[in-house]
Amino acid sequence: MDIPSFFNLQAYSTSRIQQINAALDRLTPPADAPPASLHEAMRYSLFAGGKRVRPLMCVAAAEAVGGTAEKVLPVACAIEMIHTFSLIHDDLPALDNDDLRRGMPTSHKVYGEALAILAGDALHTLAFSVLAGKQECDDPARLFRVIRLIAESCGEAGMVGGQVDDMLYERRPDITPEILRSIHARKTGALLNASILSGAILSGAAVDQEDALRNYGDQIGVAFQIIDDILDVTSDDATLGKPAGSDLKNDKATYPKLFGLEKSTQLAQDAVQTALSALSHFDERAEPLRAFASYIIQRDM
Amino acid sequence: MDIPSFFNLQAYSTSRIQQINAALDRLTPPADAPPASLHEAMRYSLFAGGKRVRPLMCVAAAEAVGGTAEKVLPVACAIEMIHTFSLIHDDLPALDNDDLRRGMPTSHKVYGEALAILAGDALHTLAFSVLAGKQECDDPARLFRVIRLIAESCGEAGMVGGQVDDMLYERRPDITPEILRSIHARKTGALLNASILSGAILSGAAVDQEDALRNYGDQIGVAFQIIDDILDVTSDDATLGKPAGSDLKNDKATYPKLFGLEKSTQLAQDAVQTALSALSHFDERAEPLRAFASYIIQRDM
Repeated sequence: MDIPSFFNLQAYSTSRIQQINAALDRLTPPADAPPASLHEAMRYSLFAGGKRVRPLMCVAAAEAVGGTAEKVLPVACAIEMIHTFSLIHDDLPALDNDDLRRGMPTSHKVYGEALAILAGDALHTLAFSVLAGKQECDDPARLFRVIRLIAESCGEAGMVGGQVDDMLYERRPDITPEILRSIHARKTGALLNASILSGAILSGAAVDQEDALRNYGDQIGVAFQIIDDILDVTSDDATLGKPAGSDLKNDKATYPKLFGLEKSTQLAQDAVQTALSALSHFDERAEPLRAFASYIIQRDM
Repeated sequence: MDIPSFFNLQAYSTSRIQQINAALDRLTPPADAPPASLHEAMRYSLFAGGKRVRPLMCVAAAEAVGGTAEKVLPVACAIEMIHTFSLIHDDLPALDNDDLRRGMPTSHKVYGEALAILAGDALHTLAFSVLAGKQECDDPARLFRVIRLIAESCGEAGMVGGQVDDMLYERRPDITPEILRSIHARKTGALLNASILSGAILSGAAVDQEDALRNYGDQIGVAFQIIDDILDVTSDDATLGKPAGSDLKNDKATYPKLFGLEKSTQLAQDAVQTALSALSHFDERAEPLRAFASYIIQRDM
């Protein structure tokens, strides 16, 4: 990982991921509690080596506005549960039909389709149980806003709606850059942005800070998706931990397909620059967010 | 419907169902808004002729403690969305593989498996969006309790966990009455009970009222499930709106199988009596709840 020398993103991420994983473990029922098969399936996907991008962004945004990681761990974990549920369902035979995820067999390959569907549903519900029952906030109105924000980001107007349009536009020649961007903004951007805003809102962010972080999140989401599309073309199965070239196989609209590799890389770099500009009024506590932005266009998995 | 002459349950239900359906329509995105196929699938199952048992119980419990139906409509609708999502997923080929529900083709028969899975997910999320964004309550602590209660009732400790054990104990000879009851208490009882308690809590119920309603809900849940099992044996497809005899076909543990028809009927009647006793300290505003209890053992669908 080649990151700016003035901030050690790797050390930061390692320490925060330890906190996040410990909290996820506390907040998820033990694998041996009945119904054990369900809990095992929930934990299998939750601890399958995810990069924890969303919870990391959540705690980094909390710290950027003067809060602490510790205080937003429940919301960070709830978002990771939602992300995990969406991966389990997206991998199902009826949807993307993927056998591998993060280098491991997908949930339905290990536990069968029925349990994979139900483990996804249980993680989905557990997220809201954690939000309403474990996340503390001095100002209840802020917590209600966060729950609403997260629900909207993963529902029909967000993640699920984006997934539906993603399927709809497979193998269609009439997809435009605007449609592609709208699909990604909902399918992956909305929850990423909700992660950032949730951490900030619960840590008492001012309105102008929220606006800046919303811009940052939008741009980061675009850059993240472009690099995802590029890696699907340029990387290999072993590095990605999932089948490379699957977008091509499924005839999916991607940035490289619409713009070519070179222009796509430029678009990602532009988005990161705009994201960094959005943080210009933040002090050194926003260094983790700045470093993440730079890292996104350098990652190889 | 043969109901006590002193209270017109049919008129009450008709009027409240009108309110509930109008609220469901308001709270669900229009069928022609994009992504239209997703919204259409969500609405197809939501307005497929459900009996609205859970939202009716919710508003009746609100009224029983001095509240109004109007003020708890969002939570009542959220619960119906969760119930509907669970039916869509339960009907999937990988789970119960049912082609008919309420006399109509199930979601995956109409929209395909992928969209059925996603429509279920979207309704699941929309429920929490409604709870955190549309339900009002003077006391935020009560609303957080309700969101938590509903989430717990439909997650791994409730509905989904019960569904997993229900699958697990199919075709197993070692199921006991205790296990059967525990499966039902989670698979159908928990959300029914959450419906009743949510309406009451948001309407300012006192602790002893909550306790009484919890007892009422437990017993109603038991009676409801026993009658469901009995109808699966004694009724026909046309009356039920779904295939009769499906429990037998799937070799599911049921009350008639474990206790016989006569004893099962007696158990249902006993549960209803206990439910009615639990309401002994309530005044005439609990008449709808009392009438529901009596109706449950007289219903034929």
